[in-house]
Amino acid sequence: MYVFTHQGVNVSLLVVGSVALDTVETPFGRVKDALGGSAVYISTAASFFTTPIRLVGVVGGDFPKEYFSFLESRQIDLDGLRVIQDGRTFRWSGRYHYDLNNRDTLLTELNVFSSFEPQIPDGYKRSLYVCLGNIHPNLQRRVLAQISKPRLVVGDTMNYWIETTPQELRQTLELLDVLILNDSEVRLLAKEPNLVRAAKVIRSMGPRVIIIKKGEHGALLVTEDTIFSAPAYPLENIYDPTGAGDSFAGGFIGWLAKTDDVSDGNLKRAVIYGSALASFCVERFSVDGLRELSYLKIQDRYRSFMELSRFDER
Amino acid sequence: MYVFTHQGVNVSLLVVGSVALDTVETPFGRVKDALGGSAVYISTAASFFTTPIRLVGVVGGDFPKEYFSFLESRQIDLDGLRVIQDGRTFRWSGRYHYDLNNRDTLLTELNVFSSFEPQIPDGYKRSLYVCLGNIHPNLQRRVLAQISKPRLVVGDTMNYWIETTPQELRQTLELLDVLILNDSEVRLLAKEPNLVRAAKVIRSMGPRVIIIKKGEHGALLVTEDTIFSAPAYPLENIYDPTGAGDSFAGGFIGWLAKTDDVSDGNLKRAVIYGSALASFCVERFSVDGLRELSYLKIQDRYRSFMELSRFDER
Repeated sequence: MYVFTHQGVNVSLLVVGSVALDTVETPFGRVKDALGGSAVYISTAASFFTTPIRLVGVVGGDFPKEYFSFLESRQIDLDGLRVIQDGRTFRWSGRYHYDLNNRDTLLTELNVFSSFEPQIPDGYKRSLYVCLGNIHPNLQRRVLAQISKPRLVVGDTMNYWIETTPQELRQTLELLDVLILNDSEVRLLAKEPNLVRAAKVIRSMGPRVIIIKKGEHGALLVTEDTIFSAPAYPLENIYDPTGAGDSFAGGFIGWLAKTDDVSDGNLKRAVIYGSALASFCVERFSVDGLRELSYLKIQDRYRSFMELSRFDER
Repeated sequence: MYVFTHQGVNVSLLVVGSVALDTVETPFGRVKDALGGSAVYISTAASFFTTPIRLVGVVGGDFPKEYFSFLESRQIDLDGLRVIQDGRTFRWSGRYHYDLNNRDTLLTELNVFSSFEPQIPDGYKRSLYVCLGNIHPNLQRRVLAQISKPRLVVGDTMNYWIETTPQELRQTLELLDVLILNDSEVRLLAKEPNLVRAAKVIRSMGPRVIIIKKGEHGALLVTEDTIFSAPAYPLENIYDPTGAGDSFAGGFIGWLAKTDDVSDGNLKRAVIYGSALASFCVERFSVDGLRELSYLKIQDRYRSFMELSRFDER
């Protein structure tokens, strides 16, 4: 299914991941049961580029009405969001340290997410772009088994799956086009301290594109022919890093789905859009940094990224 | 004194710092009593842009002839290199860990460096560009007291001086135009975890330009009007990180002295040249990565840096 707009081609985008209620403490404040989860951040960030977004996830009967409304206001299609009325929504709680680079997980209550089995609605099975949030690699694979010929599959993972389900993860990696992970996860997965070499090792496991998120140091894109170093936006006020990585993934795949162009040059632009969305995300708690956002503001920040990294030829 | 070449204006460049014999162990090998020290790396790196370089430092009678010859071959003027015949040269020894991001200092033998009192030869006192290697802030200030109206003063420092001589360092900072330091030192000096804010705090202490070295993550340039994020060159083979920071400083000030242009646009180029020289330095032990270098190879790497960070407008 194609939707044409004046700004370009929009192709169907499916997002699968967690929908959560987050309780977060940073040096700047605290929020309780705020809207969170990988599928929420990815979908919200992507919704600035292409709509509707097809979200697949699960919540309990306690999931607040206003959060449904928010997701709908972003034109996120909730046909694939299962509501288990007598269950409780996945809850996560964490506390960030003074420098915001480290955090302690205080609580992880899987609740309805513990038996999450992604059912892809029939209407979603021909989605061309698929973004798999950070869930069990077997679940990621079971999602893909339901999709017919996706054009691009982007997957996220984390140290927990690398350490506890290495074989399952390896099988999933064979099915991904793009793997997004952070620098310590790259080293852990490749068993190689040099990032460039580690990215090559991981490319040999399946994904033709590796994106290494480095937090305040930006991101690296590694393909067969290209290495691209994207700066981080130099924010003076970071309130809550929660969701930054998922907002990155959402901005990244949102731009690709909007333009339906997976050339190296466009992957670079997508990394900058991802970085832009992450930078907006961390300026507020929960999804609040994305609430008042507009496509124009995103374009402005894209230009700031150009300014930030541009230097002239000698 | 101006030296004109076909490539631009070359102005006089004075470098003051340590000249050392380094014993270094990395996972890839070991060198004993190799040529090292901040003044050596800075001068050697800068010598690809402008010559002669005026080096001020001190060595003992044990300083090998071949090292004098190497420095002379790079057109480094040694009138200011004092030789204390019955003394021993400064020695440093360190061991790098598996990931090369951390090292243990095994030995620091100051020897003749412990009573180093920089005497600037009369012919050097009108040097227009001055680079102060990482030495005691009081020594850095006593160098500057001997220089008449420098056009640009670049200084390096380290956590040791920030922690043990904070007041002396603050006095020196008032005299610097450019301060180069790494990200953890920026946070330590400014007492502020956010790098952008920390750079602003340090600018208020004196230097109008702050350069934050982030190792494998590149460098940030912060001036009144500009923040510039330079990528690191994605090296697959790093043999010895020793001297990377000083090679950066040498490439940076070498380019500025060559072009005699301290505009924001040219400072950005200088950061890239500094990053290029650092990338060559770490590809071999000691100064060997700079030995076989040429201006053409440096220009090639400059272009690689453009490739690495360039993305197109939407």
